[in-house]
Amino acid sequence: MRTQVVIIGAGPAGLLLGQLLHTAGIDNVILERKTGDYVLGRIRAGVLEQTTLDLLDIAGVGSRARAEGLPHEGIELLFQGARHRIDLHALSGGRRVTVYGQTEVTRDLMEARKAAGLATFYEAEDVRLEGTDGNSPTVHFTRGGGAQTLRCDFVAGCDGFHGVARQSIPGSVLQTYERAYPFGWLGVLADTPPVSHELIYANTPRGFALCSMRSETRSRYYLQVPVGERVESWSDEAFWTELRARLDPEARDRLVVGPSLEKSIAPLRSFVTEPMRFGRLFLAGDAAHIVPPTGAKGLNLAASDVGFLFEALADHYREHSSAGIDFYSQRCLQRVWRAVRFSWWFTSLMHRFPDAGEFGQKIQEAELDYLISSQAASTSLAENYVGLPMNTRYADGAGAPMRP
Amino acid sequence: MRTQVVIIGAGPAGLLLGQLLHTAGIDNVILERKTGDYVLGRIRAGVLEQTTLDLLDIAGVGSRARAEGLPHEGIELLFQGARHRIDLHALSGGRRVTVYGQTEVTRDLMEARKAAGLATFYEAEDVRLEGTDGNSPTVHFTRGGGAQTLRCDFVAGCDGFHGVARQSIPGSVLQTYERAYPFGWLGVLADTPPVSHELIYANTPRGFALCSMRSETRSRYYLQVPVGERVESWSDEAFWTELRARLDPEARDRLVVGPSLEKSIAPLRSFVTEPMRFGRLFLAGDAAHIVPPTGAKGLNLAASDVGFLFEALADHYREHSSAGIDFYSQRCLQRVWRAVRFSWWFTSLMHRFPDAGEFGQKIQEAELDYLISSQAASTSLAENYVGLPMNTRYADGAGAPMRP
Repeated sequence: MRTQVVIIGAGPAGLLLGQLLHTAGIDNVILERKTGDYVLGRIRAGVLEQTTLDLLDIAGVGSRARAEGLPHEGIELLFQGARHRIDLHALSGGRRVTVYGQTEVTRDLMEARKAAGLATFYEAEDVRLEGTDGNSPTVHFTRGGGAQTLRCDFVAGCDGFHGVARQSIPGSVLQTYERAYPFGWLGVLADTPPVSHELIYANTPRGFALCSMRSETRSRYYLQVPVGERVESWSDEAFWTELRARLDPEARDRLVVGPSLEKSIAPLRSFVTEPMRFGRLFLAGDAAHIVPPTGAKGLNLAASDVGFLFEALADHYREHSSAGIDFYSQRCLQRVWRAVRFSWWFTSLMHRFPDAGEFGQKIQEAELDYLISSQAASTSLAENYVGLPMNTRYADGAGAPMRP
Repeated sequence: MRTQVVIIGAGPAGLLLGQLLHTAGIDNVILERKTGDYVLGRIRAGVLEQTTLDLLDIAGVGSRARAEGLPHEGIELLFQGARHRIDLHALSGGRRVTVYGQTEVTRDLMEARKAAGLATFYEAEDVRLEGTDGNSPTVHFTRGGGAQTLRCDFVAGCDGFHGVARQSIPGSVLQTYERAYPFGWLGVLADTPPVSHELIYANTPRGFALCSMRSETRSRYYLQVPVGERVESWSDEAFWTELRARLDPEARDRLVVGPSLEKSIAPLRSFVTEPMRFGRLFLAGDAAHIVPPTGAKGLNLAASDVGFLFEALADHYREHSSAGIDFYSQRCLQRVWRAVRFSWWFTSLMHRFPDAGEFGQKIQEAELDYLISSQAASTSLAENYVGLPMNTRYADGAGAPMRP
């Protein structure tokens, strides 16, 4: 078998890339280790930047997100018992974010892919990449017990942190940067009306909490828990009791509890791999970088990587230009590090750190006080939260500043 | 002897308070452990906020600082080999800082005090405070071998970090917050023309460097050195060689070296004491808080403490109101923590930390990149550097936000 681009991973990054390439007439095949239902069952992020919506539009799959997604024009920060609204829309010059579950994005992309008749091989196992440092990579895999081979021009590694793509690159080529945080997020999904129409980020003496929503009838809540905590230790009742204790009185009164549809603990980690290209193998999304979920940047960064990769491949096939390919890693990493910095900062600001010490705790309080009292500081939060502008095309210099 | 206010310490904070009180007809006496010449010989800060100049004006001693001080409308950040200007003036809505040495401020205040015939007891030793938690404190001290006693209404502790004032407050009353940094600043004062008319803050692989000026013919340079470094290890030649290695080629070419007039190493520390009042004893300036010098906030914070204390005492004597006294600590501390946060942040941004790790180093680079590429982030730096507005009078609520 032969295709132009083999995409490893049928999560939102891989599926989005497939649709974008399809719009440019670039043939592609997706290999996915799990089943489609498994992929759809993963509960993940739910906040889309406008740049991500724009990419969904370009891929021809933005209409349901535009119609059913819930525009959010602000977030609330709760600390020292009081909520303070950050007016994202006013502070960012009219931008907003859209609440639309990653699961829904994935579903829309899967359906579009099916309608376009593009090949996706689910339950593709033992994926092995060969010759990505040459001109014609080969991808070996097994499926239903049989060994198969795909020849291609390029491989896109959209297979997440634990995927095979990054591991296929010689360790001596990669530099990785990592920080583990001393806590995780215990998340609960419930079919209850959300406590607020805007996200509430709470910094409390008991730890961080986040109130978010998926729809008018479905809520997603998170609690900071110590690293090593087991989800089995948390009954639904224990979760709701602890969440209530971290909210302000008004939110506490409005909280509607119900049985959890999903409950899980995710560790928080910052991780970046450099470079993001090895010959004809490109890494995109979680395969190359992980951010803590506080800034809602994971899915959006994956989308911008994929946007850059799409431009690079389209330029290669249409204009025989290698500039996009050559600058892919540099261009991605500039935006990645800006989001990694923001996610690290916002995580540091909103969580309780066991080793902060009294001085660190006071600095955190002073930063929150300054943040809500300064137009400039609030604007900085807002412009990062709604998403910094995509940096310029490599033609204009990949390192050019991104003044909005 | 009896006076209304005994001021401990004849540094700029104590002297400024004395002049301000004098303008309101409030009698005061200053006790200073050292000689006047010793005080004048200390080389300290040199960057004044506009609020500090305003206070000098109110005290009637601002004319020379206004005439001879050098207005600075920008600073330069040097990193990854290139300088980036932060336009303080444009970003802060027309504010600026004034370069005018602390020594000159002290000299102006000393002369005004002498002209006003106010009492300053230099070489006052063994200062001991009594009854500051009652209505009529007593200050005991010895001078020229003889024991003396001053009765007063209030005591102002302007005697610095190592002074007697803070140590006179029962330890159980005070909460202290502290961070020591793993480096110090090696400073050199030289009668050479400055390398630049604006301050250059350099973050280099060899460590931080700062180029500043006192006048057109006098320069002040600093180098980050490891904690524990001895000034005797640094010849003038070694200093200039290392400074040159931390500058960009243009600055390197313009650097004029010469014999050091003063050379010293200062450790970097953040320190805050709460509360800043114990009965009728007030702490102001370094007696209550220390900031690393990176943000040029130490002298300016001392001045704003003194401004708040002056208002409080003037209201007490003129209007028989205790509101200013009651809110003194809270009002100071709000501004103090904002400056402590800024100084900690700017120090963290510009220095190399031995324990930063590779992730921490990349985060620092990402923050510098974001800082110069974002109008909001640059504005945040600028508004802090030129000085956040004085917070409102207690009558309007000491905790009110300080939107510019």
